[in-house]
Amino acid sequence: MRPEHAPKTLRRTTAKGLATRKRIVSTAAELMLTRGIAGTTLDDIGAAATVGRSQMYHYFTDKRELVRDVVRQQTEAIIAHQGPDYDDLTTWEAWQRWRDRMVADSEAGGCVGGCPLGSLGTEVAERDVDARDLVAAGFARWEQGFRDGITTMRERGLLGPDADPHALATTVMVALQGGLLLAQVQRDVRPLAIGLDTAIAAIRRYATGRGVS
Amino acid sequence: MRPEHAPKTLRRTTAKGLATRKRIVSTAAELMLTRGIAGTTLDDIGAAATVGRSQMYHYFTDKRELVRDVVRQQTEAIIAHQGPDYDDLTTWEAWQRWRDRMVADSEAGGCVGGCPLGSLGTEVAERDVDARDLVAAGFARWEQGFRDGITTMRERGLLGPDADPHALATTVMVALQGGLLLAQVQRDVRPLAIGLDTAIAAIRRYATGRGVS
Repeated sequence: MRPEHAPKTLRRTTAKGLATRKRIVSTAAELMLTRGIAGTTLDDIGAAATVGRSQMYHYFTDKRELVRDVVRQQTEAIIAHQGPDYDDLTTWEAWQRWRDRMVADSEAGGCVGGCPLGSLGTEVAERDVDARDLVAAGFARWEQGFRDGITTMRERGLLGPDADPHALATTVMVALQGGLLLAQVQRDVRPLAIGLDTAIAAIRRYATGRGVS
Repeated sequence: MRPEHAPKTLRRTTAKGLATRKRIVSTAAELMLTRGIAGTTLDDIGAAATVGRSQMYHYFTDKRELVRDVVRQQTEAIIAHQGPDYDDLTTWEAWQRWRDRMVADSEAGGCVGGCPLGSLGTEVAERDVDARDLVAAGFARWEQGFRDGITTMRERGLLGPDADPHALATTVMVALQGGLLLAQVQRDVRPLAIGLDTAIAAIRRYATGRGVS
C-alpha cells in the first residue's frame, strides 16, 4: 500500500501521535461506558481528552472508526484484567480464584458499568456490523483462555474425555455476560456469583477425581 | 389526588386516547430495539406512529416517561411470549419444551435484537435509575415463573429439599441473558442453547429420581 493510500490511522506514527491517539480512545471508552456510544459525541471526547476538533478528525475519519478502536481497547483491558489465574485455568483452585476475582471486582465497582464489551456489543449489534464482528472476536479471544484451561485439564486427565472444551468455555462466557448484566441492573453481585458457580459446577461434572480439591 | 394534579398519563383516559398512547409506546419499543434509546427521538417516534408533536407531549412529559412505559410494555410482551409451559414449569418435559421454544424463537429471528429487556437494561443502567429499577422489576417478574415451577417441583418431591428455587431461577435468568446477548453478537443461537442446557442440568442435579423422564 502506498503511503498516500494508507488509512488515516497509519499516517501519523510518531510517538507523540500514537500517545494522543491512545488518549482519545481511552477517553472515548470511558465516556461510552456510562453515556453509551449514541450519547457520546466526537466533540465530547475531544473536550474530555483536550484534543481539538481538527485533530480528532486527523486521527479518526468518523465515530465508527473510533468505536472500533474502543472495542479493541476494551478487549485488551478486559484480558489484562483477568488476573494471573486466567492464563492457567488448569486446576480447580485456579478456577475458584479467577471466579472470586471476577465477583470481587464487580462488587468493588458497585456493579457499575457491567461488562464493557457486552455493553458495546448490545449497542452496536443492530447498527454497526463491523463493530459487532469485533465484539464477537473479543468474546472469542476472552473465551480462548477458558477453552485452553479446560483442554489442558482434559489432557492431564483431570477431566474425562467427553468434556467439550468449546461448549464448557461458552458456558463460562454465558455466565459472565448474563451475570454481569443482571448484577449491573440489580446493583447486586449475586447473579454473577451464582452464574459462575453454576458454570464451574458444569465443568466439575466431568471431573475424573484426579486433582480434585 | 385531585384531577388537576393527576399526572399527564391519567388526564386522558378515553378509549381513543388509550389506544393512541399504546400505539406510541409500541412504536417507541420497536424503534428503540434497533436504534437504541439514545438513537431514537420523540420526533422519530411521532413520525413513525403518525402522532403530532403536540400530541406526543400531551401523552408524555418527556422521553424518560416514555422509556418507562416501553420497559413496562416489553416486560409484558416477554412474559406473554414465554408460551404455555412457562406458566407451569413443574415437569422436566415442560422445562425442555420451554427451552426449545426460547432457542427456536431466537433462531427464527436470526438472533436479532437479543433480549429487549436486557438491551434496555444495559442502556439505562448508568443513566436513568427509575428505568433501571423497572428493568430489575421486570427481570424479577420473569424469574418468578422459574422460581414457582422449581418450588412446586420441590414440594412434589421431584427435587430434593436442598434445591434453592431462588438461586436456581437466577441461574436460568443468567443463562437467558448471557445466551441472548452472545447469540445476538455472534448471530448464532448456540450460546443460548448451551446456556439453557447448563441451567436445566443445574436444576436436575437436585432431581430425586421421581418424575424423571
